[in-house]
Amino acid sequence: MNRSAEIICVGTELLLGDILNGNAQYLAQQLASLGIAHHYQTVVGDNPTRLKRAVAIACERARLLIFTGGLGPTPDDLTLATLAEFFDTDLAERPEIVADLEAKFASRGRTLNKTSRRQAQLPKGADILPNPVGTAPGVIWEPRNGLSVLTFPGVPWEMKTMWETTAVPYLQNSGWAKGVIHSRMLKFWGMGETTLAKQVQPLLFAENPTVATYALGGEVKLRVSARAESIEAANALIDPVVDEIRQITGTACYGQDSETMAEVVGQLLLAQKQTVSVAESCTGGGIGQLLTAVAGSSGYFWGGIISYDNRVKQGLLGVEASVLAQQGAVSAEVAAAMATGVRDRTGTHWGISVTGIAGPGGGSVEKPIGLVYVGLSSRHFTRTEKFLFNQSLTREQIRQRTALSALNLLRIELLGKNN
Amino acid sequence: MNRSAEIICVGTELLLGDILNGNAQYLAQQLASLGIAHHYQTVVGDNPTRLKRAVAIACERARLLIFTGGLGPTPDDLTLATLAEFFDTDLAERPEIVADLEAKFASRGRTLNKTSRRQAQLPKGADILPNPVGTAPGVIWEPRNGLSVLTFPGVPWEMKTMWETTAVPYLQNSGWAKGVIHSRMLKFWGMGETTLAKQVQPLLFAENPTVATYALGGEVKLRVSARAESIEAANALIDPVVDEIRQITGTACYGQDSETMAEVVGQLLLAQKQTVSVAESCTGGGIGQLLTAVAGSSGYFWGGIISYDNRVKQGLLGVEASVLAQQGAVSAEVAAAMATGVRDRTGTHWGISVTGIAGPGGGSVEKPIGLVYVGLSSRHFTRTEKFLFNQSLTREQIRQRTALSALNLLRIELLGKNN
Repeated sequence: MNRSAEIICVGTELLLGDILNGNAQYLAQQLASLGIAHHYQTVVGDNPTRLKRAVAIACERARLLIFTGGLGPTPDDLTLATLAEFFDTDLAERPEIVADLEAKFASRGRTLNKTSRRQAQLPKGADILPNPVGTAPGVIWEPRNGLSVLTFPGVPWEMKTMWETTAVPYLQNSGWAKGVIHSRMLKFWGMGETTLAKQVQPLLFAENPTVATYALGGEVKLRVSARAESIEAANALIDPVVDEIRQITGTACYGQDSETMAEVVGQLLLAQKQTVSVAESCTGGGIGQLLTAVAGSSGYFWGGIISYDNRVKQGLLGVEASVLAQQGAVSAEVAAAMATGVRDRTGTHWGISVTGIAGPGGGSVEKPIGLVYVGLSSRHFTRTEKFLFNQSLTREQIRQRTALSALNLLRIELLGKNN
Repeated sequence: MNRSAEIICVGTELLLGDILNGNAQYLAQQLASLGIAHHYQTVVGDNPTRLKRAVAIACERARLLIFTGGLGPTPDDLTLATLAEFFDTDLAERPEIVADLEAKFASRGRTLNKTSRRQAQLPKGADILPNPVGTAPGVIWEPRNGLSVLTFPGVPWEMKTMWETTAVPYLQNSGWAKGVIHSRMLKFWGMGETTLAKQVQPLLFAENPTVATYALGGEVKLRVSARAESIEAANALIDPVVDEIRQITGTACYGQDSETMAEVVGQLLLAQKQTVSVAESCTGGGIGQLLTAVAGSSGYFWGGIISYDNRVKQGLLGVEASVLAQQGAVSAEVAAAMATGVRDRTGTHWGISVTGIAGPGGGSVEKPIGLVYVGLSSRHFTRTEKFLFNQSLTREQIRQRTALSALNLLRIELLGKNN
């Protein structure tokens, strides 16, 4: 029998396509990072007969069965009852879960009812997998010798919390996770996948760590993955490769892992004690939205002006009517005037502006959809950059890439310290 | 044997968690809307042995096997070769596919190489499932009596195009899709799931159409689903139920299906020939971003001011320093001054403002995280509304709900026409 895991997601809503199976992706990533092989994923509805068949198949091809969904209090939550039946085990109410449920209900000013109390029934012999952020607990259970069963609720936030707090230590202590596969994702902006692949080509053939390219949404990524005894040992393999890549690619690498462009720009501004404001046309507030998604952004972002209509470009940003008339709203001159205008009016060190044609209407031969001007203004200079995004992109894609390109321009400038 | 479908997604990247399985969700929705039962989904890597095992299991429990992934030109694209081997059939090169590939390569100024030509090899007896938007074609194949196999590339855009142009007509003509299940999703804002369920309770027990509630991200939805011979016949069953729900729930239902809050508000503004501007603090541009996500929003949205910092609230919106000092930036008074300020300065009919505490820092006992004031100003009045979102929500969730609540306030006002 194969010492591998299988993910079994239970829920008719998955079969109806009501929800995306993000749980399977999360668990797959987690298994990979723990070095646990996993060859199959199964999705099955809230149906005991079919669930039992899926379990029978999974028992034949895996030794670690990970279930999500079907743990709640409603009648269609039947994962544990079905597993108990399949493994010929009785359910028994656990007093400690009843106490926990009662406390959770009391904290909301409610009393535990019979329906919700059903969640306290677990198969005999199973350990409790506590749910610190919701009501339904899971189990860690070895119903047969060499077969481990973990169950989680379908609610992603609960599932992830339970996975991290209890399941990962269990898998490490029980010998499932022998060593780790640890990765770092380097993120690039303003560079195509082919160019990047050429620059780092020799590294793409390395074995440990491996280096692979990914491209999505205008962003290119390099994943550096190492297999080792521990995360520390993996990092020791990864660090020099990451250093080498950063040296080769220069400023094109803007961050790594969960770092966003807005976070990186924010850190640079904070470190240099500088502030920024925005003047947005086609992005309509999207740059401000990205910047303020970062907690603590009030330390460097003051705000700005959404000048979607030319009347706002004139009235609030001081763009001259003659420039708008002669050059058009989508022009380097207007981008420059917007960036200077917002910096003047707010008093920040930097002003960023964007004006462009996001489509689907409004394009012309001279000024096609995807044409965008970004402006950047400081005390010392104002400059603009022209972008021509692919016309096949959607309105949202063009707006998103415009916002990130504008932030990237400021990032490069801050790195050069030539302000 | 069960006259149902099974979705089999082939790709090691799914097992590594590199990508979300959006294809499974799309196909699940499509099968549901065509009235084709589907009880299992399987994910398996680019491994012929395991893929064959998965096919063997699927043949036991379904009669329509739908594969995605593994159709490309690279060595790990082995879905068709594996299926051919499993069903003991030879592959044969199809001249019409070679011609198609040659034409597609020529249009990009390239010649067809040996690797890419491999995509022209299909199992003998299989029909071609053309790929109008990419290179790799799929098959429609009955390798055994009563067993249908459809294959698609993993690229979502290609898969969906091929599904819609060729697979759906095939399923309809071959008797797979008997009748349809058609749904309409009604979307509600500012009403809890329990309240809504109580209001429409008798309908929740109806059979055709069925009515079910969903709650996600502060939004509650009602899905009205009917099974009928055709979409038209289903709509005839759905329409009166939707009318009844809209009558019961009044203005709480803001839209249906893919309609967004910003679109609905935009349509109302357009119809009433009115314009709007925004003054945003905690959302940082998010309301403008939502409004301008709608193509044609320049017809009613002029722009506004992102007043994240108090200096911008004072300098650009004219909020008085004394009000900021006495009431604090997060207060009804400041929200009102922001809404009036932006309307005055832009000259729009409406001014919307938001100021609040999105967290994770910045909360206090008097002004906790989740406290938000929304302001709405017209020629005739300025009013504010206080919201207290759950503190357990993330910063992004609070910001998103704030933006939608602000738009919803304007929507209700526009419906009342008391402006």
